[in-house]
Amino acid sequence: MDQQTWVAVASVISAGLTIGLGSIGSALGEGRALAQALSSIAQQPDEAATITRTLFVGMAMVESTAIYCFVVSMILIFANPFWNQMTSQ
Amino acid sequence: MDQQTWVAVASVISAGLTIGLGSIGSALGEGRALAQALSSIAQQPDEAATITRTLFVGMAMVESTAIYCFVVSMILIFANPFWNQMTSQ
Amino acid sequence: MDQQTWVAVASVISAGLTIGLGSIGSALGEGRALAQALSSIAQQPDEAATITRTLFVGMAMVESTAIYCFVVSMILIFANPFWNQMTSQ
Repeated sequence: MDQQTWVAVASVISAGLTIGLGSIGSALGEGRALAQALSSIAQQPDEAATITRTLFVGMAMVESTAIYCFVVSMILIFANPFWNQMTSQ
Repeated sequence: MDQQTWVAVASVISAGLTIGLGSIGSALGEGRALAQALSSIAQQPDEAATITRTLFVGMAMVESTAIYCFVVSMILIFANPFWNQMTSQ
Repeated sequence: MDQQTWVAVASVISAGLTIGLGSIGSALGEGRALAQALSSIAQQPDEAATITRTLFVGMAMVESTAIYCFVVSMILIFANPFWNQMTSQ
């Protein structure tokens, strides 16, 4: 197993764990917010528009943490500077 | 497996775990705050503007902890001084 | 794997885990405080100004724990005395 292979193996494993771990919190947080939104709409149907708007703007912020993980995964797979350095030797 | 490879493997794995772990707490915290905000809007629709403003300013602070992790991940991938030192030898 | 490499590998992994783990508690704590603040504003809208002020001063203190981790990560990456000692030999 030569040097390139080690970097490739580490990159593949790390890319998977990154988005795998990173999506846990994001999904749970969004699910909780969404559950509360539905409960709140049932409690105050007149405020459904305000609640829905706040929900989606807020979920976009929670989603951003998952997007950070996704970006790092993509970088590790497609724009990995360590791998580029190894293969250019 | 030479020295460069060890540093590359460590950097790749560490960059992935950093943002992977770091986004868990941030997403859960934001999700909880968002859920409570929606509940509060349903309870006091008249205060929706104040609640929404406080929510988003607060979420920006929670988001900052995820951004710290993202910054460290990017530094480990693209501006790693140990890697630069190794490759310049 | 020589001495420099061991120090570099340990520094990289430690820097990532430091901010990755350190931001979890901080983000969860801030999310919890923010959620309670929004609940309190809905309960006592007249005290919204006091609640908001207390919230942000308190969140700054919670944020400080994440900043400590961020500082330690930065020091391990960019001002690591062990690494400097190794490379100056």
